Parts: sequence; structure tokens; C-alpha cells
Amino acid sequence: LKVFSLNSNRRLSEQIAEHIGTPLGKCTVSKFSDGEIQINIEESIRGCEVYVIQSTSDPVNDHLMELLIMIDALKRASAKSINIVMPYYGYARQDRKARSREPIAAKLVADIIEQAGANRMITLDLHAPQIQGFFDIPIDHLQGVPILSDYFEGKNLDDVIVVSPDHGGVTRARKMADRLKAPIGIIDKRRPRPNVAEIMNIIGNIEGKTAILIDDIIDTAGTITLAANALIENGAKEVYACCTHPVLSGPAIERIKNSQIKELVITDSIPLPAEKQVDKITALSVAPLIGEAI
Amino acid sequence: LKVFSLNSNRRLSEQIAEHIGTPLGKCTVSKFSDGEIQINIEESIRGCEVYVIQSTSDPVNDHLMELLIMIDALKRASAKSINIVMPYYGYARQDRKARSREPIAAKLVADIIEQAGANRMITLDLHAPQIQGFFDIPIDHLQGVPILSDYFEGKNLDDVIVVSPDHGGVTRARKMADRLKAPIGIIDKRRPRPNVAEIMNIIGNIEGKTAILIDDIIDTAGTITLAANALIENGAKEVYACCTHPVLSGPAIERIKNSQIKELVITDSIPLPAEKQVDKITALSVAPLIGEAI
Ligand SMILES: Nc1ncnc2c1ncn2[C@@H]1O[C@H](COP(=O)(O)O)[C@@H](O)[C@H]1O
Ligand SMILES: Nc1ncnc2c1ncn2[C@@H]1O[C@H](COP(=O)(O)O)[C@@H](O)[C@H]1O
Repeated sequence: LKVFSLNSNRRLSEQIAEHIGTPLGKCTVSKFSDGEIQINIEESIRGCEVYVIQSTSDPVNDHLMELLIMIDALKRASAKSINIVMPYYGYARQDRKARSREPIAAKLVADIIEQAGANRMITLDLHAPQIQGFFDIPIDHLQGVPILSDYFEGKNLDDVIVVSPDHGGVTRARKMADRLKAPIGIIDKRRPRPNVAEIMNIIGNIEGKTAILIDDIIDTAGTITLAANALIENGAKEVYACCTHPVLSGPAIERIKNSQIKELVITDSIPLPAEKQVDKITALSVAPLIGEAI
Repeated sequence: LKVFSLNSNRRLSEQIAEHIGTPLGKCTVSKFSDGEIQINIEESIRGCEVYVIQSTSDPVNDHLMELLIMIDALKRASAKSINIVMPYYGYARQDRKARSREPIAAKLVADIIEQAGANRMITLDLHAPQIQGFFDIPIDHLQGVPILSDYFEGKNLDDVIVVSPDHGGVTRARKMADRLKAPIGIIDKRRPRPNVAEIMNIIGNIEGKTAILIDDIIDTAGTITLAANALIENGAKEVYACCTHPVLSGPAIERIKNSQIKELVITDSIPLPAEKQVDKITALSVAPLIGEAI
């Protein structure tokens, strides 16, 4: 068994390697002068079960190509099996044709990972669980809810309600609520007419409660910060937020800083770069979870 | 017949569209806030023969993913056939396993383009013609030599010798020499011992002649500028250089400026950005060549 890290999640990879008690495999992943990816695997992997850890986070296309080229190299070097550990699966929101002539990039990514030669994939909280069906190889689909729930349980908060920021996330909120033995609420956004601001209608009784918003991905943080502010305006005592995948692009950090969110809890499926580290944000590690799955 | 341009070669695409007398198809190719590519095809292409123009030049991974996602969208929108026009084929130098555990990225790229759903490809001066065999779909392999030769013929230079900067490029130099009715020379680099500077041994009589160096790709321009300087030192009267694919990364422009090269002639298979436009460089268009092939 050999574990290799590409460039998206070096720190998490080291923690995973430590958890399973093997050193990371030696390989350098760099770029030629013209931007093409250059990979050198510096130890034999012939006949080995190889694990490659890589999230397809920003820069998503570079991270994806690193992964594909690594798979190609491992395949040609006679690895026994090539197992991909992808804590964050990029392009997951392009998972269906919502309009005419839209691509389904999440399926394209699945196809090309298989085509390159992957034999199995371990991933975490796919934006849509249907993406498992885009693959013909076995997928281990891990969940972030237990890690996030355990953290909040440790805080011993009073009178909690778990709130989903939209209808799509109710199942996830339900799972966390069950673990915290709390009720659930849902933010029911409606746009009365086109080009008129959305109305945030809150389903569930939040009066005086500690609300925990949960989502799978927080990207520009528009949804979650508007939801948090609506909860406070409607009588919640305080609002926490959490997610598995902290994409946190564009205005996200500013919005979170300026929002009513007391604390945002994330995982390290995508590493939080130094410039995005603010007091309000707590990162939990998925290394033990992934270590167990390997 | 519909022709679409992605982001690598907008200007060339317009010229190709003009040459064949169809307007470019409407589509926007941009990025979401988190760096994922977003493609909107804004006209119906059902039942059409579609041509997509894209070089996989720097940023190569972004350009490749644009192409793959575009192919996916076209396929799902019921295009009759999807024809790729790739003036410059990136990753072509990773075309064989020269050492243990090396990837063959050029084959990976071929596989994923086919997997995405391309039906045919038109390309220009592949770094290795063997890359045609990496595909199972038909490849039209165009050549830059006639365009470059015609340009030099128009200059009416006296006493020309066409020089290949290495043994790999002799066939190409031979073709140009035939067109210009000139002899050929070869730069024969040899490293007497490891870590000792290479010796530039020139095969062919260059004394007092006008040398034209020809290569397929000029990347960091190390090879070509050293070759030019060696030719002058060994008695050539003046040195021109030309290539099909002006990758021109890193120190290339500085090196060319400071070299003995009198003029560098390139094509627009990769566009020359404004900051790289210097007096010494002349760009020829491949639009008519590609227009004829469509
Ligand atoms: N990277 C992205 N950033 C923002 N929006 C996206 C991204 N990828 C896909 N989308 C859009 O998000 C919507 C799907 O999100 P959802 O309804 O949460 O599954 C679709 O309208 C997509 O066009
Ligand atoms: N993008 C690149 N930039 C520089 N060198 C490369 C690149 N891609 C591949 N190579 C190397 O170039 C050599 C092949 O070049 P060639 O002998 O001209 O076919 C191999 O040793 C590759 O490792």
C-alpha cells in the first residue's frame, strides 16, 4: 500500500498518512515553463495498491489534470490498483441539464477519471449523491455530518435548531438534527416576481433558539449569510453555520466577517489558505475519517 | 456547418470563419467565481456539423477543460458531428516513456478528447506524427512548412541554407530546403561528459550563407538562440529562425531579443500576446490553411 499526495491537500495527506502509519510516497508534481504539468514518481509502485489524494478544488483544472496524469503514470508503471481519494469533487454542481445545451461536467469528470485508469474512488459529501452513478467503478461515499455534529455536541449549546438554507439540503439537516436530538427548520426562499428580491420565509420555530445552518458547499457565501441574517431578524438567539466543503470564493470571507454568523465550522476537504483564516472560522480534519476508509 | 471559438485563439477563429464565410457561433465561455468553467451555447446546433477551434496552449489545463466541456455540451445537444480544430496540441512532448514511471500525457489527452465525444480532429505539426496513432478518430494533420517557406521565398534571400537545430527536426528542414531549393545543415549537439557544456558541431557548409533555422515548437528559446549564435560564430552571414508553434515561455522573448537571430517567423497557432510582440518577430496566419481543411 502506497499513498501519494498531489498538490491540492498536502497537509491533509500527511495527516492521513500518519493515521494509517505509512509515509507518503515520493513524487514531485510541478509545472514546466509553459504551464504543462510534470510528474515524477520517485519510487517503484509495481504491484502496489496505490492511493492518490487530491481534491479538485481551485485551481480546479490544474488539480484535475495533475490527477489524470498521475493515474496515467501509475497505470503504465504497473500499479496493482489505483484508488483515488477525492475529499472535494469539483464540477459537482454541473450535474444535470437544467437548460438546453448545458454540459454535464460532473459526468465528464467521472468519465475521464475512469478512462485514465482509476479503479476505485473514495469521496466525501458529493453535491448530488447521483454522481456515484456517473461512475462504473466502486465509490466509497463518506459523510461529513458526524464530524460536524460531534463538534457542536462538544459545545453543549442550549435549545438548538438545525436549519437547512434550502429545500435541497433538508436530508443533511435531518441527519445532523437526529444526532443533536434537535428539531429542524428550513429556509424557504421565494421570488414573488422576476427581478424582485427573494423573500426568506422560515419554516420552523426559531424564536430564542440557537440555530445551526448546515450546507454541503459554501462558495461565495451569499446564501448562508443571507440565511443567517434572516434567522437573527426573525428572533433566533444566535446563529452558527457549518459545511463540509469550504470553497469560499470571491466575496465569501468578507460576507462571513460582516454577517451575523457567530462561528463557521468547516472541514479540510479543501485547505483554508492563510489569507482566508479568520477568527470566526474553525476547521475540523477529515483525516481520521478518510484514514479509516483506506 | 457551425464554427465555435473557445478562448485560446479568438482572432484566428474569426479569420477562419471569415475565410469559410460563416459567422462564428454564439457561445460564452467564462469562469464561475470558484474557477470552474461555465459554457453557454446560445444557438441551436441540433443536427449540425460543428467545428470547435481551440489550441491547448498556456493555460493548457484551462484550455483543455474548455474544450472537453464544450464537446460534452455539443454531444448532449445532438450535434451531428463534433470536429475539433486544434492548431497547437499541448502535452505533445510527453509522448513516450523515456524513463521509468513517466506518464504519456499526449495519449491521455487523446483518450479524453475522444471519450468526451469528438468525432474528428484537424491539427497542425504535431510534435511527433505518432500522436495521430493515439486517436481512433480521423485526424487531418496539416503542415506549417509551406506557409513558412512561402514567406522566406518572398524575401528573395541569397545563398540560403536551411538548418535543423537537432537531429529530430531534419525531415522538416528537408521539406523547407526542397521548397527553397537550398541545401540543409544540422546542428549536432554533443555532451562529451556529463555536466560539461554541450558542443555545437555544425554539419554542412554555412560559411558566408544566410541560415534559416526551423523547428516545430520554440518554447524557452534556449535551443534556437544557442544554435543561431553558433551559426554566426562559425561563419554564417546572417540567421533567420522560424517555427510553427510559438510557445515562447519564460525567458524566450529576452533570449530572442539578445540573440543573433535577425528575424523570427512564427504562425498564429498560438496567439502572440501584446507583451511578447517585438520587432524581430513576424507572425503569419494559418487561417487560410485551416479554412481550406474545414
Ligand atoms: N462552480 C459553480 N459556481 C456557481 N454556480 C455553479 C457552479 N457550477 C454550477 N453552478 C450552477 O449552480 C446550479 C446548480 O446548483 P444546485 O442547484 O445547488 O445543484 C446550476 O444552475 C449551475 O449552473
Ligand atoms: N512542456 C514541456 N516543457 C519542457 N520540456 C518538456 C515538456 N513536456 C515534455 N518535456 C520534456 O521534453 C522531452 C521530450 O522532448 P523531445 O525530445 O523534443 O520530444 C522529454 O524529456 C520531456 O520530459
